[in-house]
Amino acid sequence: MNIRDPAIPIIAPQKLEAVTVGTLHGIGLGPGDPELLTVKAVRLLQASPVLAYFAKKGGPGTARTIAGSWILPGTEELRLYYPITTEISFKTRAYTEQLASFYEDAALEIAAKLTAGRDVALICEGDPMFYGSFMHIFARLKERFRISVTPGISGMSGCWSAAGQPITWGDDVLTILPGTLPLDVLSRRLAETDAAVIMKLGTNFPKVRQALANAGLLDRALYVEHGTTAAERILRVMEKTDDDAPYFSLILVPGQGRRP
Amino acid sequence: MNIRDPAIPIIAPQKLEAVTVGTLHGIGLGPGDPELLTVKAVRLLQASPVLAYFAKKGGPGTARTIAGSWILPGTEELRLYYPITTEISFKTRAYTEQLASFYEDAALEIAAKLTAGRDVALICEGDPMFYGSFMHIFARLKERFRISVTPGISGMSGCWSAAGQPITWGDDVLTILPGTLPLDVLSRRLAETDAAVIMKLGTNFPKVRQALANAGLLDRALYVEHGTTAAERILRVMEKTDDDAPYFSLILVPGQGRRP
Repeated sequence: MNIRDPAIPIIAPQKLEAVTVGTLHGIGLGPGDPELLTVKAVRLLQASPVLAYFAKKGGPGTARTIAGSWILPGTEELRLYYPITTEISFKTRAYTEQLASFYEDAALEIAAKLTAGRDVALICEGDPMFYGSFMHIFARLKERFRISVTPGISGMSGCWSAAGQPITWGDDVLTILPGTLPLDVLSRRLAETDAAVIMKLGTNFPKVRQALANAGLLDRALYVEHGTTAAERILRVMEKTDDDAPYFSLILVPGQGRRP
Repeated sequence: MNIRDPAIPIIAPQKLEAVTVGTLHGIGLGPGDPELLTVKAVRLLQASPVLAYFAKKGGPGTARTIAGSWILPGTEELRLYYPITTEISFKTRAYTEQLASFYEDAALEIAAKLTAGRDVALICEGDPMFYGSFMHIFARLKERFRISVTPGISGMSGCWSAAGQPITWGDDVLTILPGTLPLDVLSRRLAETDAAVIMKLGTNFPKVRQALANAGLLDRALYVEHGTTAAERILRVMEKTDDDAPYFSLILVPGQGRRP
């Protein structure tokens, strides 16, 4: 099926009564270790005749890889390819429009399965409602279809557990920061908080390191890459000499609050 | 066994070589729904001959209740009773000392099982390294024993999923605030953030409601009680007329960031 096909029909709510419409299950898969799926996630993905997931062209996608060993033979797979946007800055209108068009098309594809009476499991790495692509499908379909959301272990939780780092004690304030924010904002937010997690590193890594230095937190910060997987790598930010940071990496600044 | 017995011996690291020492597994159970345990959590708690958990006197404890259906017959249970501290403010030295003494004794009890060569599963509601009592045992035993940490779905993740509320979009900053903070701090932190979660409500609820009003967020805030369990209750903070809030409740202020 061509996911760019705008001809896939969507049945309006008042016409739904005659058919048994499927349910969309948004399912969090956790940070990477296939054993960190919840029992509910395994049950729902195995009970759904259609398995949908986002992926970049040329690969199976992270979600498909994490879920791999749990998928039953005979499951229909609906692969939703992200548009190739590497040449366009994410701050431009062109990027936003391309992404919006992609999510519209993906929602149409999923809606077609649901209106045909088939349940769809849309599997997502991490937690679906926490900076997740799933939310863009959820927002487009929630008024018209039954949607269940199964939370997943967040990437940050997998990383602080793997690193053996309690993240918040007592009255600690924890701030979650996207590395995409400007240097001055990052520096100020970091200086004001007790504990922090910095997501979305990638090319933002040198800027984030500078923000940590500005906030006087460089010696407390840990870098975690591919946490809970075979490729896991954990080191102090001070010991990281290069500027490379894959999308699935983050920085932890553990709190130092009250400890009876 | 009397958990106040200070005579339980701890073997110093240099004496450990002769015996096979057990491993301590810190296991997150998630927000309340027994199906939200991870596959790894179920495997490790079933493989451990000793199951330890915190509880208030007079009840089985939340962790024991969540894990109940997964516990195999013949498992030895080590119940660690919190001291009764309702008459003492948590800000006093007496409270801190009582709690420190409790964690010391609990660590001794667990250490005795480990030195006897038995693995111990210390099960915890939510995520063990996120404001968890487990961290106080972890801090006391990590230099002397092998400890594995299995992350769990955090209470906040269970609640925003149950409420159907994407919590962070695009570049949203998420701030996690303990409701124990003073009114002015809460008000300022809430005014500065894009999205927020307020934990540890209890008797702090009226103060937190005032802080939300001060920050102009009262209409966006959701109250979730016992999320993912049969007792789940979700309502807008504006619609909550009483001041009661159990310990297992929290407030969500969903972000409103970039949505292609």
